Amino acid sequence: MPTASMDAQARKKTLRMFSNGMYVLTSRSGQAYGAATVTWVSQASFKPPLLMTAVRRDSNVYRCLAESRIAAIHVLAADQQDIAQKFFAPTTASAGMINGEPFVDGKTTAPVLRNTPAHVECRVQQIFDHLGDHSIVILEVVEAEFRCEARPLTIGDSPWEYGG
Amino acid sequence: MPTASMDAQARKKTLRMFSNGMYVLTSRSGQAYGAATVTWVSQASFKPPLLMTAVRRDSNVYRCLAESRIAAIHVLAADQQDIAQKFFAPTTASAGMINGEPFVDGKTTAPVLRNTPAHVECRVQQIFDHLGDHSIVILEVVEAEFRCEARPLTIGDSPWEYGG
Repeated sequence: MPTASMDAQARKKTLRMFSNGMYVLTSRSGQAYGAATVTWVSQASFKPPLLMTAVRRDSNVYRCLAESRIAAIHVLAADQQDIAQKFFAPTTASAGMINGEPFVDGKTTAPVLRNTPAHVECRVQQIFDHLGDHSIVILEVVEAEFRCEARPLTIGDSPWEYGG
Repeated sequence: MPTASMDAQARKKTLRMFSNGMYVLTSRSGQAYGAATVTWVSQASFKPPLLMTAVRRDSNVYRCLAESRIAAIHVLAADQQDIAQKFFAPTTASAGMINGEPFVDGKTTAPVLRNTPAHVECRVQQIFDHLGDHSIVILEVVEAEFRCEARPLTIGDSPWEYGG
Protein backbone atom coordinates (compact mmCIF):
# COMPACT_ATOMS: atom_id res chain seq x y z
CA MET A 1 0.00 0.00 0.00
CA PRO A 2 1.22 3.49 -0.84
CA THR A 3 1.53 4.72 2.77
CA ALA A 4 5.04 6.01 2.21
CA SER A 5 3.92 8.28 -0.61
CA MET A 6 0.88 9.71 1.17
CA ASP A 7 0.85 13.51 1.28
CA ALA A 8 1.09 14.13 5.05
CA GLN A 9 -0.15 17.69 4.72
CA ALA A 10 -3.24 16.59 2.77
CA ARG A 11 -3.94 13.91 5.36
CA LYS A 12 -3.65 16.40 8.23
CA LYS A 13 -5.85 19.02 6.59
CA THR A 14 -8.46 16.44 5.65
CA LEU A 15 -8.61 14.80 9.08
CA ARG A 16 -8.92 18.22 10.69
CA MET A 17 -12.14 18.71 8.70
CA PHE A 18 -13.65 15.78 10.58
CA SER A 19 -16.26 17.09 13.02
CA ASN A 20 -16.32 16.12 16.68
CA GLY A 21 -17.86 17.41 19.86
CA MET A 22 -15.93 18.18 23.04
CA TYR A 23 -16.73 16.20 26.17
CA VAL A 24 -15.44 15.70 29.69
CA LEU A 25 -14.78 12.01 30.35
CA THR A 26 -14.61 11.07 34.03
CA SER A 27 -14.01 7.89 35.97
CA ARG A 28 -12.86 6.70 39.36
CA SER A 29 -11.37 3.57 40.78
CA GLY A 30 -11.74 3.49 44.54
CA GLN A 31 -10.26 6.77 45.77
CA ALA A 32 -8.41 7.46 42.50
CA TYR A 33 -10.13 9.93 40.16
CA GLY A 34 -9.57 10.64 36.52
CA ALA A 35 -11.07 13.28 34.23
CA ALA A 36 -10.08 14.65 30.84
CA THR A 37 -11.48 16.65 27.96
CA VAL A 38 -11.87 14.35 24.97
CA THR A 39 -13.10 14.81 21.42
CA TRP A 40 -12.72 11.45 19.67
CA VAL A 41 -16.18 10.15 20.61
CA SER A 42 -19.11 8.80 18.59
CA GLN A 43 -22.15 6.66 19.09
CA ALA A 44 -21.60 3.12 17.76
CA SER A 45 -24.90 1.25 18.30
CA PHE A 46 -28.56 1.92 19.12
CA LYS A 47 -29.30 -1.47 20.75
CA PRO A 48 -27.55 -1.72 23.06
CA PRO A 49 -26.69 2.00 23.20
CA LEU A 50 -22.92 2.05 22.70
CA LEU A 51 -20.35 4.80 22.40
CA MET A 52 -16.84 4.42 21.04
CA THR A 53 -14.07 6.72 22.24
CA ALA A 54 -10.32 6.83 21.70
CA VAL A 55 -8.48 7.69 24.90
CA ARG A 56 -4.80 8.34 25.69
CA ARG A 57 -3.36 5.38 27.50
CA ASP A 58 -1.11 7.58 29.67
CA SER A 59 -4.08 9.45 31.20
CA ASN A 60 -5.49 9.09 34.72
CA VAL A 61 -8.98 8.69 33.34
CA TYR A 62 -7.86 5.75 31.22
CA ARG A 63 -6.21 4.04 34.20
CA CYS A 64 -9.35 4.52 36.30
CA LEU A 65 -11.85 3.25 33.72
CA ALA A 66 -9.66 0.29 32.77
CA GLU A 67 -9.69 -0.78 36.45
CA SER A 68 -13.22 0.08 37.52
CA ARG A 69 -14.99 -0.44 34.16
CA ILE A 70 -17.19 2.64 34.70
CA ALA A 71 -17.11 6.13 33.21
CA ALA A 72 -19.25 9.19 32.54
CA ILE A 73 -19.26 11.41 29.46
CA HIS A 74 -20.48 15.00 29.78
CA VAL A 75 -21.63 17.11 26.85
CA LEU A 76 -20.33 20.69 27.07
CA ALA A 77 -22.27 23.70 25.89
CA ALA A 78 -20.77 26.01 23.28
CA ASP A 79 -20.14 28.66 25.98
CA GLN A 80 -18.30 26.22 28.28
CA GLN A 81 -14.80 26.39 26.79
CA ASP A 82 -13.61 27.28 30.32
CA ILE A 83 -14.73 23.87 31.57
CA ALA A 84 -13.01 22.12 28.65
CA GLN A 85 -9.83 24.03 29.52
CA LYS A 86 -9.94 22.91 33.19
CA PHE A 87 -9.84 19.26 32.14
CA PHE A 88 -6.76 19.62 29.97
CA ALA A 89 -4.86 19.77 33.28
CA PRO A 90 -3.91 16.73 35.42
CA THR A 91 -6.76 15.48 37.60
CA THR A 92 -7.12 16.88 41.12
CA ALA A 93 -10.14 15.82 43.18
CA SER A 94 -11.20 16.64 46.74
CA ALA A 95 -14.40 17.27 48.71
CA GLY A 96 -16.89 17.28 45.86
CA MET A 97 -14.65 19.21 43.47
CA ILE A 98 -12.71 17.85 40.51
CA ASN A 99 -10.40 20.21 38.61
CA GLY A 100 -12.34 23.09 40.13
CA GLU A 101 -15.77 21.82 39.05
CA PRO A 102 -18.42 20.49 41.45
CA PHE A 103 -19.37 16.83 41.11
CA VAL A 104 -21.47 14.19 42.80
CA ASP A 105 -21.22 10.41 42.69
CA GLY A 106 -23.31 8.98 39.87
CA LYS A 107 -25.30 5.76 40.09
CA THR A 108 -22.30 3.89 38.70
CA THR A 109 -20.07 5.82 41.20
CA ALA A 110 -18.46 7.71 38.29
CA PRO A 111 -18.01 11.43 39.07
CA VAL A 112 -20.91 13.41 37.57
CA LEU A 113 -20.25 17.09 36.91
CA ARG A 114 -23.07 19.41 37.96
CA ASN A 115 -22.57 22.26 35.51
CA THR A 116 -22.91 20.55 32.13
CA PRO A 117 -26.15 20.36 30.13
CA ALA A 118 -26.26 16.56 29.89
CA HIS A 119 -24.27 13.42 30.59
CA VAL A 120 -24.35 9.66 30.30
CA GLU A 121 -22.95 7.09 32.69
CA CYS A 122 -21.49 3.99 31.13
CA ARG A 123 -20.04 0.58 31.72
CA VAL A 124 -16.88 -0.34 29.82
CA GLN A 125 -17.85 -3.09 27.41
CA GLN A 126 -14.51 -3.59 25.63
CA ILE A 127 -11.09 -1.98 25.43
CA PHE A 128 -8.86 -2.39 22.38
CA ASP A 129 -5.33 -1.47 23.41
CA HIS A 130 -3.28 -2.69 20.51
CA LEU A 131 -4.65 -0.79 17.50
CA GLY A 132 -2.97 2.61 17.63
CA ASP A 133 -1.54 5.28 19.95
CA HIS A 134 -4.90 5.68 21.72
CA SER A 135 -6.98 2.92 23.29
CA ILE A 136 -10.41 2.41 21.77
CA VAL A 137 -12.94 2.10 24.57
CA ILE A 138 -16.44 0.78 23.87
CA LEU A 139 -18.93 2.06 26.44
CA GLU A 140 -22.49 0.93 27.08
CA VAL A 141 -24.78 3.74 28.23
CA VAL A 142 -26.58 2.69 31.42
CA GLU A 143 -27.74 6.05 32.81
CA ALA A 144 -28.47 9.45 31.30
CA GLU A 145 -29.40 12.86 32.60
CA PHE A 146 -30.54 15.67 30.34
CA ARG A 147 -30.66 18.96 32.23
CA CYS A 148 -31.12 21.62 29.56
CA GLU A 149 -31.07 22.27 25.85
CA ALA A 150 -27.80 23.78 24.67
CA ARG A 151 -25.82 24.16 21.50
CA PRO A 152 -22.97 21.66 22.02
CA LEU A 153 -19.31 22.67 22.02
CA THR A 154 -17.45 21.27 19.02
CA ILE A 155 -13.75 21.11 18.33
CA GLY A 156 -14.32 23.03 15.08
CA ASP A 157 -15.83 25.97 16.93
CA SER A 158 -13.15 25.92 19.63
CA PRO A 159 -9.66 27.48 19.60
CA TRP A 160 -8.15 23.96 19.77
CA GLU A 161 -7.32 21.22 17.29
CA TYR A 162 -7.04 17.50 17.87
CA GLY A 163 -6.71 15.49 14.73
CA GLY A 164 -4.54 15.00 11.69
CA MET B 1 -26.49 -2.24 36.57
CA PRO B 2 -29.57 -0.02 36.45
CA THR B 3 -30.17 -0.33 32.71
CA ALA B 4 -33.83 -1.15 33.19
CA SER B 5 -34.45 2.06 35.08
CA MET B 6 -32.64 4.36 32.64
CA ASP B 7 -34.76 7.23 31.37
CA ALA B 8 -34.94 6.42 27.65
CA GLN B 9 -35.98 9.95 26.75
CA ALA B 10 -33.03 11.46 28.65
CA ARG B 11 -30.68 9.01 26.93
CA LYS B 12 -32.05 9.87 23.50
CA LYS B 13 -31.91 13.63 24.03
CA THR B 14 -28.39 13.44 25.46
CA LEU B 15 -27.01 11.22 22.70
CA ARG B 16 -28.54 13.52 20.08
CA MET B 17 -26.39 16.33 21.51
CA PHE B 18 -23.29 14.37 20.48
CA SER B 19 -21.67 16.12 17.50
CA ASN B 20 -20.70 14.30 14.33
CA GLY B 21 -19.87 15.18 10.78
CA MET B 22 -21.57 13.72 7.71
CA TYR B 23 -19.49 11.69 5.27
CA VAL B 24 -19.90 9.50 2.23
CA LEU B 25 -18.28 6.10 2.81
CA THR B 26 -17.53 4.16 -0.38
CA SER B 27 -16.02 0.80 -1.19
CA ARG B 28 -15.94 -1.81 -3.92
CA SER B 29 -15.24 -5.47 -4.16
CA GLY B 30 -14.52 -6.47 -7.73
CA GLN B 31 -17.48 -5.18 -9.74
CA ALA B 32 -19.71 -4.71 -6.68
CA TYR B 33 -19.93 -1.13 -5.40
CA GLY B 34 -21.16 0.21 -2.09
CA ALA B 35 -21.66 3.78 -0.90
CA ALA B 36 -23.57 5.29 1.99
CA THR B 37 -23.85 8.50 3.97
CA VAL B 38 -22.51 7.88 7.47
CA THR B 39 -22.12 10.01 10.56
CA TRP B 40 -20.69 7.78 13.30
CA VAL B 41 -17.04 8.46 12.46
CA SER B 42 -14.09 9.71 14.49
CA GLN B 43 -10.34 9.65 14.37
CA ALA B 44 -8.90 7.04 16.77
CA SER B 45 -5.07 7.33 16.51
CA PHE B 46 -2.40 9.67 15.16
CA LYS B 47 0.31 7.02 14.56
CA PRO B 48 -0.76 5.11 12.64
CA PRO B 49 -3.56 7.42 11.45
CA LEU B 50 -6.71 5.46 12.27
CA LEU B 51 -10.41 6.20 11.98
CA MET B 52 -13.19 4.33 13.74
CA THR B 53 -16.64 4.14 12.17
CA ALA B 54 -19.82 2.26 13.01
CA VAL B 55 -21.51 0.88 9.89
CA ARG B 56 -24.79 -0.94 9.32
CA ARG B 57 -24.12 -4.59 8.66
CA ASP B 58 -27.00 -4.85 6.15
CA SER B 59 -25.49 -2.21 3.83
CA ASN B 60 -23.78 -2.75 0.48
CA VAL B 61 -20.83 -0.64 1.57
CA TYR B 62 -20.28 -2.89 4.57
CA ARG B 63 -20.36 -6.03 2.45
CA CYS B 64 -17.87 -4.53 0.00
CA LEU B 65 -15.36 -3.29 2.59
CA ALA B 66 -15.55 -6.52 4.60
CA GLU B 67 -14.57 -8.42 1.45
CA SER B 68 -12.08 -6.09 -0.20
CA ARG B 69 -10.65 -4.45 2.97
CA ILE B 70 -10.57 -1.03 1.29
CA ALA B 71 -12.76 2.05 1.65
CA ALA B 72 -12.81 5.81 1.13
CA ILE B 73 -14.37 8.46 3.38
CA HIS B 74 -15.37 11.79 1.86
CA VAL B 75 -15.93 14.97 3.86
CA LEU B 76 -19.01 16.87 2.70
CA ALA B 77 -19.26 20.65 2.70
CA ALA B 78 -22.06 22.35 4.61
CA ASP B 79 -23.81 23.19 1.32
CA GLN B 80 -23.69 19.57 0.06
CA GLN B 81 -26.81 18.18 1.76
CA ASP B 82 -27.94 17.11 -1.72
CA ILE B 83 -24.95 14.75 -1.98
CA ALA B 84 -25.66 13.33 1.50
CA GLN B 85 -29.24 12.71 0.39
CA LYS B 86 -28.16 10.82 -2.74
CA PHE B 87 -26.27 8.29 -0.63
CA PHE B 88 -29.21 7.47 1.63
CA ALA B 89 -30.52 5.49 -1.37
CA PRO B 90 -29.36 1.99 -2.38
CA THR B 91 -26.11 1.97 -4.35
CA THR B 92 -26.25 2.16 -8.15
CA ALA B 93 -22.99 2.43 -10.06
CA SER B 94 -22.24 2.60 -13.78
CA ALA B 95 -19.81 4.29 -16.16
CA GLY B 96 -18.05 6.57 -13.73
CA MET B 97 -21.21 7.52 -11.82
CA ILE B 98 -22.30 6.27 -8.41
CA ASN B 99 -25.73 7.34 -7.11
CA GLY B 100 -25.63 10.19 -9.62
CA GLU B 101 -22.20 11.49 -8.54
CA PRO B 102 -19.05 11.24 -10.68
CA PHE B 103 -16.23 9.09 -9.33
CA VAL B 104 -12.84 7.76 -10.31
CA ASP B 105 -10.90 4.77 -9.04
CA GLY B 106 -8.67 5.72 -6.15
CA LYS B 107 -5.18 4.34 -5.56
CA THR B 108 -6.71 1.62 -3.37
CA THR B 109 -9.38 1.06 -6.10
CA ALA B 110 -12.06 2.47 -3.77
CA PRO B 111 -14.46 4.83 -5.61
CA VAL B 112 -13.37 8.44 -5.08
CA LEU B 113 -16.07 11.09 -5.51
CA ARG B 114 -14.98 14.13 -7.50
CA ASN B 115 -17.25 16.78 -6.00
CA THR B 116 -16.34 16.70 -2.31
CA PRO B 117 -13.78 19.02 -0.67
CA ALA B 118 -11.55 16.24 0.71
CA HIS B 119 -11.32 12.51 1.20
CA VAL B 120 -9.13 9.78 2.62
CA GLU B 121 -8.58 6.28 1.28
CA CYS B 122 -8.18 3.56 3.85
CA ARG B 123 -7.36 -0.05 4.48
CA VAL B 124 -9.60 -1.97 6.85
CA GLN B 125 -7.47 -2.77 9.89
CA GLN B 126 -10.08 -4.51 12.06
CA ILE B 127 -13.81 -5.18 12.10
CA PHE B 128 -15.70 -5.82 15.33
CA ASP B 129 -19.00 -7.44 14.43
CA HIS B 130 -20.27 -8.66 17.76
CA LEU B 131 -20.53 -5.51 19.87
CA GLY B 132 -23.82 -3.90 18.88
CA ASP B 133 -26.27 -3.39 16.03
CA HIS B 134 -23.59 -1.71 13.87
CA SER B 135 -20.16 -3.10 13.03
CA ILE B 136 -17.22 -1.09 14.28
CA VAL B 137 -14.70 -0.74 11.47
CA ILE B 138 -11.16 0.46 12.21
CA LEU B 139 -9.62 2.06 9.13
CA GLU B 140 -6.00 3.03 8.50
CA VAL B 141 -5.62 6.13 6.34
CA VAL B 142 -3.25 5.37 3.46
CA GLU B 143 -4.08 8.17 1.00
CA ALA B 144 -5.55 11.65 1.32
CA GLU B 145 -6.61 14.38 -1.05
CA PHE B 146 -7.51 17.86 0.12
CA ARG B 147 -9.08 19.86 -2.70
CA CYS B 148 -10.48 22.97 -1.02
CA GLU B 149 -11.26 24.59 2.30
CA ALA B 150 -14.91 24.23 3.27
CA ARG B 151 -17.05 24.37 6.36
CA PRO B 152 -17.91 20.68 6.92
CA LEU B 153 -21.47 19.38 6.97
CA THR B 154 -22.49 18.16 10.43
CA ILE B 155 -25.49 16.13 11.50
CA GLY B 156 -26.43 18.91 13.93
CA ASP B 157 -26.69 21.46 11.13
CA SER B 158 -28.60 19.07 8.86
CA PRO B 159 -32.33 18.28 8.75
CA TRP B 160 -31.54 14.70 9.81
CA GLU B 161 -30.90 12.89 13.08
CA TYR B 162 -28.95 9.71 13.68
CA GLY B 163 -28.38 8.93 17.31
CA GLY B 164 -30.16 8.26 20.55
